[in-house]
Amino acid sequence: MSRNELITLLNETVANHHLDQALALLKGVPSADLAELLQQMIPSYAAYLLEHLPQRAYIFAEFPAKQQMLIAQEMPRQVLAKIVSEMPSDDRADLFKRLDPSEQETLLPALAQAEREDIRRLADYVEGTAGAIMSSDYVTLKPEFTVAQAIEALRKDAPDAETIYQAYIIDEQRHLIGVVSLRELVLAQPETRVAQLMVRDVISARVDDDQDHIAKIMARYDLLALPIVDAQQALVGIITYDDAMDVASEEATEDFLKVGAVNATTKLSIKSAPILQLYQKRVFWLVFLVFGSLLSGIGIAHYEDVIAQHLVLVFFLPLLVGSGGNAGSQSSTLMVRALATGDVQFRDWFYLLGRESLVALCLGGTMAIAVSLLGYVRGDALVALVLAFSMVGIVLMGCLIGMSLPFILNRFGFDPASASAPLVTSICDAMGVLIYLFIASMILF
Amino acid sequence: MSRNELITLLNETVANHHLDQALALLKGVPSADLAELLQQMIPSYAAYLLEHLPQRAYIFAEFPAKQQMLIAQEMPRQVLAKIVSEMPSDDRADLFKRLDPSEQETLLPALAQAEREDIRRLADYVEGTAGAIMSSDYVTLKPEFTVAQAIEALRKDAPDAETIYQAYIIDEQRHLIGVVSLRELVLAQPETRVAQLMVRDVISARVDDDQDHIAKIMARYDLLALPIVDAQQALVGIITYDDAMDVASEEATEDFLKVGAVNATTKLSIKSAPILQLYQKRVFWLVFLVFGSLLSGIGIAHYEDVIAQHLVLVFFLPLLVGSGGNAGSQSSTLMVRALATGDVQFRDWFYLLGRESLVALCLGGTMAIAVSLLGYVRGDALVALVLAFSMVGIVLMGCLIGMSLPFILNRFGFDPASASAPLVTSICDAMGVLIYLFIASMILF
Repeated sequence: MSRNELITLLNETVANHHLDQALALLKGVPSADLAELLQQMIPSYAAYLLEHLPQRAYIFAEFPAKQQMLIAQEMPRQVLAKIVSEMPSDDRADLFKRLDPSEQETLLPALAQAEREDIRRLADYVEGTAGAIMSSDYVTLKPEFTVAQAIEALRKDAPDAETIYQAYIIDEQRHLIGVVSLRELVLAQPETRVAQLMVRDVISARVDDDQDHIAKIMARYDLLALPIVDAQQALVGIITYDDAMDVASEEATEDFLKVGAVNATTKLSIKSAPILQLYQKRVFWLVFLVFGSLLSGIGIAHYEDVIAQHLVLVFFLPLLVGSGGNAGSQSSTLMVRALATGDVQFRDWFYLLGRESLVALCLGGTMAIAVSLLGYVRGDALVALVLAFSMVGIVLMGCLIGMSLPFILNRFGFDPASASAPLVTSICDAMGVLIYLFIASMILF
Repeated sequence: MSRNELITLLNETVANHHLDQALALLKGVPSADLAELLQQMIPSYAAYLLEHLPQRAYIFAEFPAKQQMLIAQEMPRQVLAKIVSEMPSDDRADLFKRLDPSEQETLLPALAQAEREDIRRLADYVEGTAGAIMSSDYVTLKPEFTVAQAIEALRKDAPDAETIYQAYIIDEQRHLIGVVSLRELVLAQPETRVAQLMVRDVISARVDDDQDHIAKIMARYDLLALPIVDAQQALVGIITYDDAMDVASEEATEDFLKVGAVNATTKLSIKSAPILQLYQKRVFWLVFLVFGSLLSGIGIAHYEDVIAQHLVLVFFLPLLVGSGGNAGSQSSTLMVRALATGDVQFRDWFYLLGRESLVALCLGGTMAIAVSLLGYVRGDALVALVLAFSMVGIVLMGCLIGMSLPFILNRFGFDPASASAPLVTSICDAMGVLIYLFIASMILF
């Protein structure tokens, strides 16, 4: 049965009140796939079916924001409240943040007080920080517990916990004093005390730490979950590996778009973002670069006489100027990614400058040979000479600017990804015009 | 104590044979940090210290390839063999692949036969496939086990297993028939049978599946571990979330570099890659683009008369041509990433083409206003008109090319990331010159 046939069949089955048949069709299908199927069903049918699926809260959490709102509207308020209370605490807080105040007021009274407070607390953290993605569904143990007591406590907490594979040991003030894994608990003797078993040097992060930082720590130490503490070192939440994966993917997308001169500070989908938003995220750099290109224009104006007498130079202008920009954006791309993954630091600058110069000379030399052949065919030996010298100079300049700019931006607290590529191109273009026409005026006059 | 002081102190302590002091200094330090410290010590001291650290195999596995070889040479062969046999099976196979044949022959006899076979089997899989990163240290259970027996089996296997949080149920032919989590086992009654508890629709992948595909599946279903089966559906390995995170990060880096016209099919570090390799990975596209720029040159040559009579047109040439390339590379960046994350599919093309045209007209309109002001100042009203029309045309063309090319590359089985940006720039440049000079020749003559 194809996917579309399945969706049609599900719609029909629900329409004919054969709920059991519909549920049987969906048995064993993972939540992520169920979420996708339900999104393509008629919303009122999807809402009805969802209500009766055992993993309903997880499926609902998988929906994109728009779909959540659509399905929520099709549900009786009491059912929605039940599903919301079953949701993982981080997804629940995200949903709540998206509701408008009147919808929030309709939903809140239907929830238990503990959940209301939990939602309010989690929804308070600034977007982009650890607090905004952490879950409050973690498991804590007391240091004086025996292993048998600890496992019993885990069993009791399991239904509501994001993970029971890591349990955190806290003191009376909720200070994080240790961590123990279920693996260690299962391997230990039942009468051993948790205090003897736990690891005391817990790797943790602060609620106000950047999400990017969280993802890096978790990847570095291969953590299944990272405990999050507040300014008083009290445990307030955990972030699990699956959320870290999502963060890493979002950060990579952001850097990727920034290098492409798209101003992406939040998730931007070319498919579903409003057209006005796509326009806003892109227009700044494009207009900025229009004015940046003026620099090239000024260079050209300065050498207008040279150009008027040797119109053949115009023929090669886009080629030479473009080559500097291309070489420069290669360098800045390599640098931006290396800075993002932590492969290089500021102290490596001079070392890298030397390496990059060598690479640039090799690249420039190769390209000089290619372009001077073209110059000889189209012009003469002198033009070929101008082109060869210009190419080496322009590529060298492009690579050094491309390599240095991300460092400089980083040093002064700017994000090296944003702006690097367009800035590098803009600067390289202007410098390229000047180098080319200066060398031409030296050799041809 | 600063990091450098700690390293000096460690070197001294080992030199003076105070091993216990050195070990005391390092107590509680996570493996990833230990690996970094040891890399900065004198190699022979690092090798000696490593031998006595409890997590030695994991620390050794964290070293970069070069450092592994350096430390390996400082160790007695028997010690190295012990460490290698304690390493996670996937890291061990990676190390083995890097050794040259004579080193392989020295090491192999010191290992137990089961380990030798395991290494040979794992080292056989093609780079970039699931087989090349999977681990053979997984836990299997029989369906007729009770929960108590299952937990006992997990306890026994725990010391060598990559994870005991997922256990796989196989039949006599090692066919994968179910999966059960330690969470479910801990929650269940001791006398329940595993067969009643296990999930039968196991999400799995094939040994020859692409690593990128693996990372996507694991992120989609939030999996802690993904079982890998061979062509006969027999279980041969698992991939854990931490390896999936590494793969996702490497894939993002690769795409990132490709868009920057760096030909990265393998991991390329701007810091440690040989200069010749950096040259090779970059030269192809640069020289290709030199010839690509010829198209622009031909356009210019065709309209030489127009340029000769209106030299002011040259002033705006880099600006207009660059704007088309900038707008186009924004579009292609958005598209490439959207294709990579699975946000859009081929069937979305026409829908996106419509949206993109609207965005492009808005962008082009804004930029036309900016550039025609400049044109009026520098030239006259007619020049301003030429610039305004050209800008709208060029940006529209750039966006549509930038959006379509990744789709077309993808459709014909090429990687949309590789080449998109440079190809788009190259095509947009040439088209931009033609559009600009064509409009100029229409209006000014």
